[in-house]
Amino acid sequence: MRMPENEQALKYSRLREAMRKEDADACLISLNIHHYYFTGEVFNGYLYITPESGPYYFIIRPSGTEMENRHYIRKPEEIPGILAGLGVSPPRRLWLEADELPYSAYVRLKNIFRPESEGNASAAFRQLRMIKTSWEIGQFRLSARQHEAVYREIPACYRPGMTDLELQIVIENRMRQHGSIGLFRAFGTNMDIFMGSLLAGGNAETASPFDFALGGGGMHPSTPIGANGTVLAEGMSVMVDMSGNYTAYITDMTRVFSVGKLKEEAYAAHWVALEMQQWLAEQAKPGMLCSDIYGYALETARQAGLVGNFMGSRQQARFVGHGVGLQINELPVMAPRYDVPLQPNMVFAFEPKFVLPGTGAIGIENTWLVTENGVEELTCLPEEIIPLS
Amino acid sequence: MRMPENEQALKYSRLREAMRKEDADACLISLNIHHYYFTGEVFNGYLYITPESGPYYFIIRPSGTEMENRHYIRKPEEIPGILAGLGVSPPRRLWLEADELPYSAYVRLKNIFRPESEGNASAAFRQLRMIKTSWEIGQFRLSARQHEAVYREIPACYRPGMTDLELQIVIENRMRQHGSIGLFRAFGTNMDIFMGSLLAGGNAETASPFDFALGGGGMHPSTPIGANGTVLAEGMSVMVDMSGNYTAYITDMTRVFSVGKLKEEAYAAHWVALEMQQWLAEQAKPGMLCSDIYGYALETARQAGLVGNFMGSRQQARFVGHGVGLQINELPVMAPRYDVPLQPNMVFAFEPKFVLPGTGAIGIENTWLVTENGVEELTCLPEEIIPLS
Repeated sequence: MRMPENEQALKYSRLREAMRKEDADACLISLNIHHYYFTGEVFNGYLYITPESGPYYFIIRPSGTEMENRHYIRKPEEIPGILAGLGVSPPRRLWLEADELPYSAYVRLKNIFRPESEGNASAAFRQLRMIKTSWEIGQFRLSARQHEAVYREIPACYRPGMTDLELQIVIENRMRQHGSIGLFRAFGTNMDIFMGSLLAGGNAETASPFDFALGGGGMHPSTPIGANGTVLAEGMSVMVDMSGNYTAYITDMTRVFSVGKLKEEAYAAHWVALEMQQWLAEQAKPGMLCSDIYGYALETARQAGLVGNFMGSRQQARFVGHGVGLQINELPVMAPRYDVPLQPNMVFAFEPKFVLPGTGAIGIENTWLVTENGVEELTCLPEEIIPLS
Repeated sequence: MRMPENEQALKYSRLREAMRKEDADACLISLNIHHYYFTGEVFNGYLYITPESGPYYFIIRPSGTEMENRHYIRKPEEIPGILAGLGVSPPRRLWLEADELPYSAYVRLKNIFRPESEGNASAAFRQLRMIKTSWEIGQFRLSARQHEAVYREIPACYRPGMTDLELQIVIENRMRQHGSIGLFRAFGTNMDIFMGSLLAGGNAETASPFDFALGGGGMHPSTPIGANGTVLAEGMSVMVDMSGNYTAYITDMTRVFSVGKLKEEAYAAHWVALEMQQWLAEQAKPGMLCSDIYGYALETARQAGLVGNFMGSRQQARFVGHGVGLQINELPVMAPRYDVPLQPNMVFAFEPKFVLPGTGAIGIENTWLVTENGVEELTCLPEEIIPLS
């Protein structure tokens, strides 16, 4: 699971290219997730890189790492002196993780380095991370195999009379047994979610505060999303959208199960979602705009008379797909006005879903890789509504 | 589980008192955790309060909440206009969550309100949250009962030949069955942990990047903490420090199990930890300095010849206790130079631990409530080393 050496070199080279384009002298990286992205390791400290020199690692903890160019420090105030001793000039324009570093931490670093100006490393990294490397794509494939294996076990997890939460807990256990790393990472301060979402029946209609595709009341007011203790009963759909975090690279996949038989309209709506996906599989390729993918899906929902159910009912998400990676909500986003073209090696989830009052959530989600001339489905598993019994 | 009405009034009144002391005109609250702290609900949006007026709720999502004084907005730029319409003057000194809000989000809010100065709401909330209300203490008691129930089941979770991770996964499953909300919240951007830590044998010696009490290699390089796949074998200690998040208020409790019999020195070290705890139970009371608690524990370790094993071996944590609450690492901290006196209604974990090469981690942890004239143990369960077989 360790990141190969050439992966680091590739990522640093892409970072330097991005820095040169925006005249950044230096980039200082504080966050675990970015340390992991570039080095394959997590440490408490800072990674400093310039277009010409470094990377330099300034490590507070753990003791005894074996990274090259490492310097042990107690606090970031020590960094400029060490860099000066190495002959590295102070930065004029410094990149900091502006969208993720807390204000006080950011201001502290700014006061230490006193650059003339700063750039937003968070935004730059979101762009870099949008295009995956071969190694990253391999990590998704490993996640996908386990994600599929767990979903195959779902019918065996079901017992009549159980609640949505009870079923979710059994699935979580299977996930961990199959190597899920547990932690489910999302971009954004307020995006709390635990291992994924399972929505049964009317709970799928409950609006949530989060910017995920669907809602659900949740099991506790401190975490109002997902399963809420609904007893699974005849005629309910059970939408399983649990995390594919079997490596640090997360696959996203949703399958729908039914308790007994659903209303006919549910199967019809599911068919519409599958048609949307079929269209994506056949038409999507580099150059297609993400906003056009959303536009197509919305228009298809409208033609099917399902626009009021598309991506929610009482509250509707305004996207139908999103990049995945180290976090579940990466770039690009298949959303109105997101006029970014698909590019090779983007990896994204496409999740056309409908919420039908009286039934629950219906639809499909898979993770897709953009190839040179199309898209490849990374998460492969039967896509029909599977009856539980 | 809903927060009672008078709890909100109490917390707002304490917040207003703190604001008046520091001449804050207004406080704008963006984070889930603080929305929950004050209202018992989580929403995407902002809570605005002044010493004289409000609170006003500006809600982006979910649709259809029933809070009083709520205003639906699409973006925070709409807030000043709405407040002006309500006759609320613009703030001169505004409190923002400086230690938690990302830099860009903070700057955006600052530019919207253009106060003459800002105060750090994060720091103020850490102080407020340090002293728990009766309702909060009741929530800890609920968590403690489930925490204890799960720990009682641990010997039944063990099977010879299993790995630390396999045991942890069974315990996680019992936790969820007993109502754990799953999400394990910590203060700080880089504090990634999933449901807690289980450390067996030599893995306890592995230094981690995190500022938690002990380390462990972890199951994946993206999350280097805790269980690492060690096969449980004769003579190993198994330290279980899994989260007590059965309400939003987290209890912290550690118990040590043994595979077969440990070396004599392990029982001796455990006895030293229990002695420290006995001292705390008898001596701690309002007025005692947190730094003195740490000093006492360190000195006791020294006298026992265990100073090199205290709170780690290769890497040693520089604290022996910490506040708990909505997050696992609240104030106060039992650490050098933290010269804050215990005060009634603080709730903290005391965790004297030793790492012994060849055995693993040893020690004890319980959650304590500071009363008017002493401390009360909130997590009650036998404290000896329990053999697994």
